[in-house]
Amino acid sequence: MKKCNANRLQQLIELFSGYGKTANNGVTRLSLSAEDLAARKKFQELCEELDMKVTYDDMGNIYATLPGKENLPPIVIGSHLDSVIKGGRFDGVLGVLTALEAVYTIKEDNIELDYPITIVNFTNEEGARFEPSLMSSGVLSGKFDKTKMLASTDTNGISFAQALSESGFEGPETNRLQEASAFIELHIEQGPVLERKNLDIGIVEGVLGMVCYEISVYGESNHAGTTPINMRRDPMFAAANLIADIQKQLQRLDSDIVYTIGRINAYPNIHTVIPSEVTFTLEARHKDPKVIAEVTRIVNGLPENPNFCSVESKRLWDRDTVDFDAEVVDAVEYACNELGYRGHRMYSGAGHDAQFIASFIPTAMIFVPSVNGYSHREDELTSYEDCAKGADVLLNAILKLCREKVNS
Amino acid sequence: MKKCNANRLQQLIELFSGYGKTANNGVTRLSLSAEDLAARKKFQELCEELDMKVTYDDMGNIYATLPGKENLPPIVIGSHLDSVIKGGRFDGVLGVLTALEAVYTIKEDNIELDYPITIVNFTNEEGARFEPSLMSSGVLSGKFDKTKMLASTDTNGISFAQALSESGFEGPETNRLQEASAFIELHIEQGPVLERKNLDIGIVEGVLGMVCYEISVYGESNHAGTTPINMRRDPMFAAANLIADIQKQLQRLDSDIVYTIGRINAYPNIHTVIPSEVTFTLEARHKDPKVIAEVTRIVNGLPENPNFCSVESKRLWDRDTVDFDAEVVDAVEYACNELGYRGHRMYSGAGHDAQFIASFIPTAMIFVPSVNGYSHREDELTSYEDCAKGADVLLNAILKLCREKVNS
Repeated sequence: MKKCNANRLQQLIELFSGYGKTANNGVTRLSLSAEDLAARKKFQELCEELDMKVTYDDMGNIYATLPGKENLPPIVIGSHLDSVIKGGRFDGVLGVLTALEAVYTIKEDNIELDYPITIVNFTNEEGARFEPSLMSSGVLSGKFDKTKMLASTDTNGISFAQALSESGFEGPETNRLQEASAFIELHIEQGPVLERKNLDIGIVEGVLGMVCYEISVYGESNHAGTTPINMRRDPMFAAANLIADIQKQLQRLDSDIVYTIGRINAYPNIHTVIPSEVTFTLEARHKDPKVIAEVTRIVNGLPENPNFCSVESKRLWDRDTVDFDAEVVDAVEYACNELGYRGHRMYSGAGHDAQFIASFIPTAMIFVPSVNGYSHREDELTSYEDCAKGADVLLNAILKLCREKVNS
Repeated sequence: MKKCNANRLQQLIELFSGYGKTANNGVTRLSLSAEDLAARKKFQELCEELDMKVTYDDMGNIYATLPGKENLPPIVIGSHLDSVIKGGRFDGVLGVLTALEAVYTIKEDNIELDYPITIVNFTNEEGARFEPSLMSSGVLSGKFDKTKMLASTDTNGISFAQALSESGFEGPETNRLQEASAFIELHIEQGPVLERKNLDIGIVEGVLGMVCYEISVYGESNHAGTTPINMRRDPMFAAANLIADIQKQLQRLDSDIVYTIGRINAYPNIHTVIPSEVTFTLEARHKDPKVIAEVTRIVNGLPENPNFCSVESKRLWDRDTVDFDAEVVDAVEYACNELGYRGHRMYSGAGHDAQFIASFIPTAMIFVPSVNGYSHREDELTSYEDCAKGADVLLNAILKLCREKVNS
């Protein structure tokens, strides 16, 4: 099996950590910001030094292509260079830099591949500057309307269209990623499973389906000191009991389900005032749509008038489970096993560009461990050793796919 | 029994509703604001037309005194002219205007009293512009430090000292309310009891003791999609179960207790993120300190590590139950009964200047019904008929006290 150069990868990660570096060793590299544009230019420069041909499309996605021996649809690898505010040094960028390292090794070892290899950098994956997240893969896959995306504005009122136009990375629509032989996105896990289970590699079979509700409990606001308990319609206690009950019901479902009440707001939220309303979100993720349907059943079965209040639930959004391509997943697993790394088949609970790209290109993902499961924070960490193992798996999965594609 | 002039009282209420009138028929008359100063000037003008002597003290409290036949400590009546932002037309001001109407009637009917009658307007009862509430009665009673109060600033950075100095209502400390024969404060109930029970008058025997806690549940923030349930320390479900359990325990205490969780905050409060912390307040009020001690026992008995989280509670503040003066309360009840109004002995759940004044002057309060129990909102309402009944009770309680004081 081929191995990447761990030292070179580490230097790449350290180099790119400088673009938008924060005081606490994280990065703020919002999409198409000065920091992102500097990182993009360095990425392009390094690709061109590798004799890769660099193009942009109409969403500012960057493609750097190493020609293959044959005129075949490329094998695409990569992720995104943008970050959230005070994010980490690994989320997204690691998928681009391991791809770059894989190409370095291919070039250095004079490996001749039938297939072109294209490294992609997707614009605005995070949605931290311009909503929504997964913006460009959403447009490429026809999930999002490009006109709406162009109109998305940041907090300074600058539109995505303006930022893109001024970036120097706007290209023609004809440059968009279209036909490809495979897409592999390497990413940090953003969860604790690999680390807790002492594993090296997540062999990602797909992205979990999910549903998100907003549940509001309406009561009557009044003075906390002067309103007898039996004359109240208090939504706080109603909401707390609903949440406790929802938890009990969700605990009875499949143990792989994850569910979160991340947001709660009371109005007017003053300690001496009975709230008029308590609203909270409930989101749940599982790969089996039947389990997600059970969550819907639980929400629809909530009591309508607990504690003399009224309950309303609104489905904010949902997404179906995305199953990745078996052959590409198998290639990742093969590479992992042959390298002697401890791999683990799993689904991603988080969203990634790969989930949209999978709709038109055979896709898989590779996860590397996140220390404490942390992501989107300055202390996000993946050891350089784990990063290098990920690059090794990426490289050998490509080689495996090339052999297989040739053989098939 | 003497009756006040209901029409004149209505005109007074309508006149004072104009000082700080809001679009929705409420008032915004923050303490020492232009609106409050205009109301104060009108109040002073009306008092002087009644041949009352008007003085101010070093907190800007206004005293208007109708001399009595004897040189006795006055009977004091009144409340406050200031309001919260978008408050109602009755809270506070009604206690001043019913006092004024009582003096109108005394003068009109040529009632000669042995005791002087002093109408008081307390500065900054609401604490809506300068914290804390009950500021001036707190200073008069020695509960609050005057130097700290003078340093309290509004949202524009203006200190209470500056606003007071520029108001034209600053007087010497020697003018402070000191010795008095009685204090009666008429106020809207701010609760639903009188209206629901179809009563006219609350004969207020005291102010409920209370305790307020802030309870924090600390867990670990992480990605909602990637963190398996059994690897979470989720404070949201822990908090919801605590609240449901607190409710169950409080329900077993005396049925007169009132308890409220009015404020809850999750951090970072994002639907896709497991919170790191959920913090809520718990306040409870009851006249019996043993019942309040039970609340403390419940808080202290909360589990320390529910759902692998940690719980901390902080006692934000408390106040002891204030019992008003039996003779003054009896005078209010006597007046109510003799007038044929439906009265009801009760404790105030809300705080009032009277609770501090009661520490050095024999005190009682009169409540009039609040429609729906609403207060501190623009649709706060007490019918003019109920206002007039309150004024009648106030007037006749004064007369009763004068007779009794003379007889005793």
